[in-house]
Amino acid sequence: MAKSKKKGPPVILITNDDGVTAPGILNLIEAVKDLGKIVVVAPDKPQSGMGHAITIGNPLRLHPLQLSEGVEAWQCSGTPVDCVKLAVDKILHRKPDLCLSGINHGSNHSINVIYSGTMSAAVEAAIESIPSVGFSLLDYSLEANFEGARKYARIIVENLLQNSLDKHLVLNVNVPAVPVELIKGMKICRQAYAKYEEDFVERNDPTGKKYYWLTGKFVNFDKGKDTDVWALENNYVSVVPVQFDLTNYVLKTKLEKTWKL
Amino acid sequence: MAKSKKKGPPVILITNDDGVTAPGILNLIEAVKDLGKIVVVAPDKPQSGMGHAITIGNPLRLHPLQLSEGVEAWQCSGTPVDCVKLAVDKILHRKPDLCLSGINHGSNHSINVIYSGTMSAAVEAAIESIPSVGFSLLDYSLEANFEGARKYARIIVENLLQNSLDKHLVLNVNVPAVPVELIKGMKICRQAYAKYEEDFVERNDPTGKKYYWLTGKFVNFDKGKDTDVWALENNYVSVVPVQFDLTNYVLKTKLEKTWKL
Repeated sequence: MAKSKKKGPPVILITNDDGVTAPGILNLIEAVKDLGKIVVVAPDKPQSGMGHAITIGNPLRLHPLQLSEGVEAWQCSGTPVDCVKLAVDKILHRKPDLCLSGINHGSNHSINVIYSGTMSAAVEAAIESIPSVGFSLLDYSLEANFEGARKYARIIVENLLQNSLDKHLVLNVNVPAVPVELIKGMKICRQAYAKYEEDFVERNDPTGKKYYWLTGKFVNFDKGKDTDVWALENNYVSVVPVQFDLTNYVLKTKLEKTWKL
Repeated sequence: MAKSKKKGPPVILITNDDGVTAPGILNLIEAVKDLGKIVVVAPDKPQSGMGHAITIGNPLRLHPLQLSEGVEAWQCSGTPVDCVKLAVDKILHRKPDLCLSGINHGSNHSINVIYSGTMSAAVEAAIESIPSVGFSLLDYSLEANFEGARKYARIIVENLLQNSLDKHLVLNVNVPAVPVELIKGMKICRQAYAKYEEDFVERNDPTGKKYYWLTGKFVNFDKGKDTDVWALENNYVSVVPVQFDLTNYVLKTKLEKTWKL
């Protein structure tokens, strides 16, 4: 087992956005269970698409549950980001050595990183100086085959635990939905500019009032071979290092020149 | 009035996260009303801290309302990001020339950009190739004095409408809570690494069950004079250009060298 800089085995916080009962989180726990002391704090219901939302106008609840032998697990009434904040402040009372989020049912490549509760939990950890990884499998189904995702999650976590890490490290890892033997390996990528083109379905409710439901079709505007979308289409696991400094430095330099303040 | 590249006056979409009845959004409308055709689509209730959340498991509603003479206005049951998506797809049926979000009651400088519904609405617009600006005033109160914020919102919007813009431009504009005559001007800045240190209040509800409520104290870890926090502390309006490509290119290069895939 990899050693923590602190005494004892490394403490690994696990969360997700599909909720504590999703097969994806159980697969993540099983993949890394023997690599450290695992503590799970995850939403008590699905929280997909919650982005970096936090709960500020309402109280939060925590309830312990049995998830996997030898693993401390809590379900939380809040968002994935709330889970990370509460875990550090009220359950662990310290920063874990690593935070893992997922394994998400469905992709979080390209622009999805910004809507994803899974990735926002990982980003929140990094803001709090906890290195973190979000894992996603390109299969929305509850019966998805997580074999490849488990394999690469373990490779990545072992690697990270053996090296001294940037405390703000965040990796966005997506795994193609193909049998594990067809996965060609991992690629370090950049985020593709690819997004959903919205098309709200318009319907009338039983009282005749209009409502709208978000649907859309995914469009890739980015043909780069260094992108996560390209890697996944070619059966690689994509690994995108993510940052939370949103400053657009190129535009900053341009505005400094043209605005002449 | 500045000309749109399309026929007629520029179309300006206005949204916020404090909800359609917040004084901040009325102040923003008043500040720019004569610069184009204004269409307001904003949440029907406060949505602070919603980050980039979208509504995927529930229907959305839109209701017209009277906000300001000559201004088309809608309240939406969803998040700030939902408002932008619905506005483009179901109300405007085209991309507006500009999207403005705010004026937020309270700061969105430094890491707050990532939790802010106000800024996430602006970022969503930019993802959809609509140049956008989020405005925030460093005063949470309903009775805040928006005079300085209105003045600089107008200066910035006039400037943007007169120039050809990067379609992915997003500006995060924060205004100090001081009388307008004390504001020294605008500064183009980077996002400071400054954040809230969480401290959840733990209480028992009337049935004796524990609940937690998010509180925290703001800590600035970043002493740079090129940051938004520095600018605001020195009575400048801070302008941070924001991007939605979250790739950490420095870490990408480092991982490419060390992981040897």
